[in-house]
Amino acid sequence: MTANEAHRLALANQYRDTLLRDVMPFWLQHGIDHEHGGYLTCLNRDGSVLDTDKSIWFQGRGAWMFATLYQTVEPHAPWIEAARSGIEFLRRHGASADGKLYFSVTRDGQPLRMRRYVYSESFAAIANAAYAHATGEAQAAEDAVKLFASYLEHSFTPGRMPPKVEPATRPMRGIGPLMIGIATAQELRAHLGDVTVSGRNCTEWIDHFIAQIARDFMKPELEALMESVGAYGEVLDHFEGRQLNPGHALEAAWFIMHEGKLRGDQQLVQTGLTILDWMWRRGWDEEHGGIFYFRDLRHLPVPEYWHDMKFWWPHCEAIIATLLAWTLTGEARYATWHQQVHDWSFRHFADPEHGEWYGYLHRDGSLSVPLKGNLWKGPFHLPRMLWYCWKLLEPSANAAKEPA
Amino acid sequence: MTANEAHRLALANQYRDTLLRDVMPFWLQHGIDHEHGGYLTCLNRDGSVLDTDKSIWFQGRGAWMFATLYQTVEPHAPWIEAARSGIEFLRRHGASADGKLYFSVTRDGQPLRMRRYVYSESFAAIANAAYAHATGEAQAAEDAVKLFASYLEHSFTPGRMPPKVEPATRPMRGIGPLMIGIATAQELRAHLGDVTVSGRNCTEWIDHFIAQIARDFMKPELEALMESVGAYGEVLDHFEGRQLNPGHALEAAWFIMHEGKLRGDQQLVQTGLTILDWMWRRGWDEEHGGIFYFRDLRHLPVPEYWHDMKFWWPHCEAIIATLLAWTLTGEARYATWHQQVHDWSFRHFADPEHGEWYGYLHRDGSLSVPLKGNLWKGPFHLPRMLWYCWKLLEPSANAAKEPA
Repeated sequence: MTANEAHRLALANQYRDTLLRDVMPFWLQHGIDHEHGGYLTCLNRDGSVLDTDKSIWFQGRGAWMFATLYQTVEPHAPWIEAARSGIEFLRRHGASADGKLYFSVTRDGQPLRMRRYVYSESFAAIANAAYAHATGEAQAAEDAVKLFASYLEHSFTPGRMPPKVEPATRPMRGIGPLMIGIATAQELRAHLGDVTVSGRNCTEWIDHFIAQIARDFMKPELEALMESVGAYGEVLDHFEGRQLNPGHALEAAWFIMHEGKLRGDQQLVQTGLTILDWMWRRGWDEEHGGIFYFRDLRHLPVPEYWHDMKFWWPHCEAIIATLLAWTLTGEARYATWHQQVHDWSFRHFADPEHGEWYGYLHRDGSLSVPLKGNLWKGPFHLPRMLWYCWKLLEPSANAAKEPA
Repeated sequence: MTANEAHRLALANQYRDTLLRDVMPFWLQHGIDHEHGGYLTCLNRDGSVLDTDKSIWFQGRGAWMFATLYQTVEPHAPWIEAARSGIEFLRRHGASADGKLYFSVTRDGQPLRMRRYVYSESFAAIANAAYAHATGEAQAAEDAVKLFASYLEHSFTPGRMPPKVEPATRPMRGIGPLMIGIATAQELRAHLGDVTVSGRNCTEWIDHFIAQIARDFMKPELEALMESVGAYGEVLDHFEGRQLNPGHALEAAWFIMHEGKLRGDQQLVQTGLTILDWMWRRGWDEEHGGIFYFRDLRHLPVPEYWHDMKFWWPHCEAIIATLLAWTLTGEARYATWHQQVHDWSFRHFADPEHGEWYGYLHRDGSLSVPLKGNLWKGPFHLPRMLWYCWKLLEPSANAAKEPA
């Protein structure tokens, strides 16, 4: 075994062990609601419940994670039971009368908040797709397609989603619906085949979304991936228009690299690498280490209060993006960046005493809050990263089960 | 002159000089839009413009501040011109077709964001009231009453404001509309007399709001002023229900003490003091100094990312509340608390090089962002505190012009 192979194996073991012996046991033990079904994610450091309200995002994200592990790691009964619990909670309590999914509900499923956007739908779609694949259940496959169709309709029908900013004054487009569209289509295709949804098959939707990102959100002259742009891709020189989200950009980068890898398409891989190169340099904190939450395109002050905090999820996305870039290219800078963000993250976010990761650190890496979950943090970014990176580094042993 | 008198005079001079030689010159020099009227508040450390978008809140808040200084300090022409600029911008560009005020507009007044709530109305009301008093303009007096009526109607007509949380599941009431109601009614009364608006005169509205706060939001058994409660004042044991906002509470405390002082009503003064006693102890950071942004009722983790940051405005409210408590009672603990928060604030927020205060510090007092203004920070909390405290400490020289 070469030194490089040994290093890869050690990394793979660390990702696997953290996933299987630390993170998933934490959620199985503390996050399953055995009374009402679904997942409780608002958990304190030790797993005790801080709030019983349920995130609809996380009913989908959690079910996707459990079903994916069941299908790609081993058919462990508690995982598929946990997945079923989330799927069934979504079926009973996820949707309002008009079919749109809520953002949050009470522990027993009474509606709390409906929001404008439709990420609940995208996460429920991937949950149903993975669950259908794992169980063969036809209803779940059908629901996955319907949910993705609803996501597409609300996200991309002009005027369908109430805009935050008056579109007659300042039409704006965000990258979020495009990048989540890519990941959702990738998951549907992985589990259901290249199904047609709302007039395009999954691969065509992915091409469509990547083309828009490349044309309107990538700015080679500025070396930046924009988070939002004007109707024609123009930079909006206001706080919101200049606000870059490095974690989001690195997530988009690995979605696109992953697509390039699956297709053997070097141009797609290069698109993802370009985004990674630009946004790593904008996002990495040279002084304290870690990835900033927001940066300004022109290096001006950012008004969002948590702009310089270190959140767990951009670090998860950065670990995947740099590792994928390294395995695809072998270039030294990606190995270096991966080691930097891997080491910083495991050193600052991990909680050896109670398991899982903290989510929210100050800029200098000190703890802001000890909770392990809330409506935005649950069994998703961290276990997805551990699973993806483990599988990426163990191709020979798991060729058939590599992330696809 | 006693040592106490000398201390009071030194403080008064510091507040006056900071107001007249530092803060107001900063806004007059950098914040007035001589091209389109109104105020630009999104300013960098040195006063340069970061974003030309305009806050409708701050068109009202700024006009109130300028008109108040003109009327209570001296009839300085640039102040009343600045006030007029904000008032006229509001008249031309503040309202949508149905009369509800926007939250933000472009530099030249095109609509950007409309929000659910109606604080734009309350701040425009006090601006028009102070401007009417300063100039004798009848239109402004009439507009002040209309704007307060609109505030009351949207805030307190059941079902009028779209709720954030489904009221059939979890009816919630926030303290914000009540405390801003008190301050708005106080300002209208100070400038227009005790006018009747929507069936109650200002004093009756104040009594109505304070009674609700005392009955439903003050929890003697918990020694806390709640930020939100259920329909009958019950504590909602969820993240949002447990979330305390010490700066907001200290602001409410001094609104109520101020009312008690004006009326010579010791019971009202005591209500304000009680809130101050409870919330100082919950809000003051014993480790690093300064006032926390959010605290949990049961000392559990708070999910809002900026919970432990130190913002300028809670410190301004704490300086007023402790100084007013000290002048009303002479009790040593209020003098101590005032000195603590005064010293911490002037040491950490001030920018001797460019003037004004920074707005956003990390928990340890280090700078998070160097900007001097955005859509939520402008010529209001800091100059209001400096003006109120200066006037409070110089009663003999300014009896007729004391805050009323």
